[in-house]
Amino acid sequence: MSTTSTAAASATDRSEAARAFLADFRSMSTFGATAGGGVDRQAGTAADGQTRNWFRGLVEGHGFEVRYDAVGNQFALLELIPGAPYVAMGSHLDSQPLGGRFDGAYGVLTAAHAAIRLKEAAQGAKFNIAVINWFNEEGCRFKPSMMGSSVFTGKLPAEQVLETTDPHGTTVREALESIGTIGDFSLDVAAYLEIHIEQGRSLEDDGLTIGLVESTWGANKYEFVVHGEQAHTGATVIADRHDALLGASLLVAAARDIADEFSTEEHAVITSCGEFTVFPNSPVVVASRVNLLVDLRSTDPDVLAAADAELHRRVAAIEQRASVEIKRGAEHVWASKAYDASGMKLAAASADKLGLPYGTVRTLAGHDSTNMKDIVPTIMLFVPSVEGISHNEKELTSDEDMLAGVDLFTELLGRVARGEFV
Amino acid sequence: MSTTSTAAASATDRSEAARAFLADFRSMSTFGATAGGGVDRQAGTAADGQTRNWFRGLVEGHGFEVRYDAVGNQFALLELIPGAPYVAMGSHLDSQPLGGRFDGAYGVLTAAHAAIRLKEAAQGAKFNIAVINWFNEEGCRFKPSMMGSSVFTGKLPAEQVLETTDPHGTTVREALESIGTIGDFSLDVAAYLEIHIEQGRSLEDDGLTIGLVESTWGANKYEFVVHGEQAHTGATVIADRHDALLGASLLVAAARDIADEFSTEEHAVITSCGEFTVFPNSPVVVASRVNLLVDLRSTDPDVLAAADAELHRRVAAIEQRASVEIKRGAEHVWASKAYDASGMKLAAASADKLGLPYGTVRTLAGHDSTNMKDIVPTIMLFVPSVEGISHNEKELTSDEDMLAGVDLFTELLGRVARGEFV
Repeated sequence: MSTTSTAAASATDRSEAARAFLADFRSMSTFGATAGGGVDRQAGTAADGQTRNWFRGLVEGHGFEVRYDAVGNQFALLELIPGAPYVAMGSHLDSQPLGGRFDGAYGVLTAAHAAIRLKEAAQGAKFNIAVINWFNEEGCRFKPSMMGSSVFTGKLPAEQVLETTDPHGTTVREALESIGTIGDFSLDVAAYLEIHIEQGRSLEDDGLTIGLVESTWGANKYEFVVHGEQAHTGATVIADRHDALLGASLLVAAARDIADEFSTEEHAVITSCGEFTVFPNSPVVVASRVNLLVDLRSTDPDVLAAADAELHRRVAAIEQRASVEIKRGAEHVWASKAYDASGMKLAAASADKLGLPYGTVRTLAGHDSTNMKDIVPTIMLFVPSVEGISHNEKELTSDEDMLAGVDLFTELLGRVARGEFV
Repeated sequence: MSTTSTAAASATDRSEAARAFLADFRSMSTFGATAGGGVDRQAGTAADGQTRNWFRGLVEGHGFEVRYDAVGNQFALLELIPGAPYVAMGSHLDSQPLGGRFDGAYGVLTAAHAAIRLKEAAQGAKFNIAVINWFNEEGCRFKPSMMGSSVFTGKLPAEQVLETTDPHGTTVREALESIGTIGDFSLDVAAYLEIHIEQGRSLEDDGLTIGLVESTWGANKYEFVVHGEQAHTGATVIADRHDALLGASLLVAAARDIADEFSTEEHAVITSCGEFTVFPNSPVVVASRVNLLVDLRSTDPDVLAAADAELHRRVAAIEQRASVEIKRGAEHVWASKAYDASGMKLAAASADKLGLPYGTVRTLAGHDSTNMKDIVPTIMLFVPSVEGISHNEKELTSDEDMLAGVDLFTELLGRVARGEFV
């Protein structure tokens, strides 16, 4: 009878914890909410600031202390063992313009709820806990993406980041000061955990609830500038044209051709162009310049290198065809890299305990854990995305899958806090 | 001796008139001046308003009255014979962003100076004179181009034009009211004359000073919208993509292929895409939509029709390749059409009298005369453009060629005013 009542109480607790999570998720999703059911919370905007303040209020209500570092990373600190090292968890609350409400935000809130649950059953913990909301993971307003975690992991200098401007000339420093989330905090981290929506369809297709991320894809990202010559679209004969828009269009088409040609059964190549800006972009003017970003990704470094070489080879032919000059600007290169194998085993054991179906996956997208895994032992988990839709207002993860992720992350955090990982 | 002194006085007059024209041209070019030597005077902006006010002051100083019609066309009226019909001349003072200082502005100032010179020797005139600065010939801020003359010639309703918005949501009515150049004037016109820079290199290549425009090219202009599906550039595999940017890029490339394939020795096909706007245009987001303008031009209606059919045929293949939907929005179609042959003869006789080398040309670009020629007998003249550069800050016509155009336009206006054309 005592067993039964304990089990009933435990079920009630889980149910209340689940309701609390979903209620917080709904509240969080109102910040920067868009008509289409998504959110627009680009880094350092008022909507981002409001979300950060809401999150601060949420965790302070549970006894966390909140601090900011020099580039606006937000740290919610839960001290269990004074002086002990920290296990950090996190993701990001910023979004794409017209982004989904799950990307990043699900991971931050799950980390906070896992920490709250752990606090109530922290017996045996050897670490303190930090939940991190990384600044500007998306990189749409300020480039590059994963900005906050890149500074934290020493890959980008803070000074350079603070002087980075958005298209209107506002610096990161000004944006952070305007929303009041900048400081001088720093934290030593012993291990890092992150959970995120998959943003792909492999878990859904395979009927799995949890993905154990085994590696990142390699990615080469390039900024290209196509230089033409401004001219009248009506009056300038074809032979006299130096059409930057034609050159840039041919580069976009070439990138797709390369994805098709270089993908193998085993190793896909994915190429994209997300940003493409035409100058002066007037109806009757041949474009003088196009700025565009092209990226190539693959799980295999050799396949990636071959695809990359082909892209650069084609640039010369495009320059000739469109009579333009193509210059390559900044590049950001991430090598394909594995996550900690013992972390994957620990996550698998946790999922087994909860009876959640799981499998190993790779991440095509970058995450803050992509940076963190290079400096501390790191575990990255995925929950399913309906139809793989992401960076889209229609992005969706079911309540059931969200809650399964929270349960698993809580179980995993407990094990890591008790010293089973590092 | 009296003959000699008359000739000397006449040479001095010409020299003073030439100096006056060049001084006014320099003053005019300071409005909206850009660092690169061009002007930025998009329709209805403060810079456009300042230029219009400067022009008003100039012609009022010479006894013209200035009036505005309902869509901001500016009329400078010189009444020589009370109650007589009007011969109108004109072009436009608005420019492209980073446009040249000659396009349109040269024609308005030349018309004004020709009228000023005629006023001082108006014996035998049977007409009154109007100089028209047409509103929004360029069509970059508000679409379509040739807006003011399209309303004047009954091709566009004034109400629709007044409600047209720029990309920031400002209407034409608001823009015109903000610069105070809107009214309710209307004018009956008996004939129309326009002079413009060639914006091509045929006069320069052939060593000619004057082009007699014999016809417009036919032009089909289309607004296309490519609809894709917003997605994560990293996480979304190629098979799941509906990439609007890829679709639009393939359309740009197809338009150029068509120009190459359908041009004949006799009849060139010119295709262009000047405006190309990507949504949401974020580095890590597959584009959900691209709006672009594609135009095809040819001197031959059959060649144009064949090229146009091919463009539309290719749209279906592009939809399939990029897995997108392409919708055609507004279209603007101008048939190739001849200018008045007797007007060309009159212009040729005027050039012969002044000893200016001339030839016949076609205009690839649209001008306000393209509209006016459909309602009244119209004469269109060109002066050379150095290297054919246009819609560019480096646009250039030499002082010598500008002054030859003013002399010819004055001679031609005298003949038209004396009743030799209509």
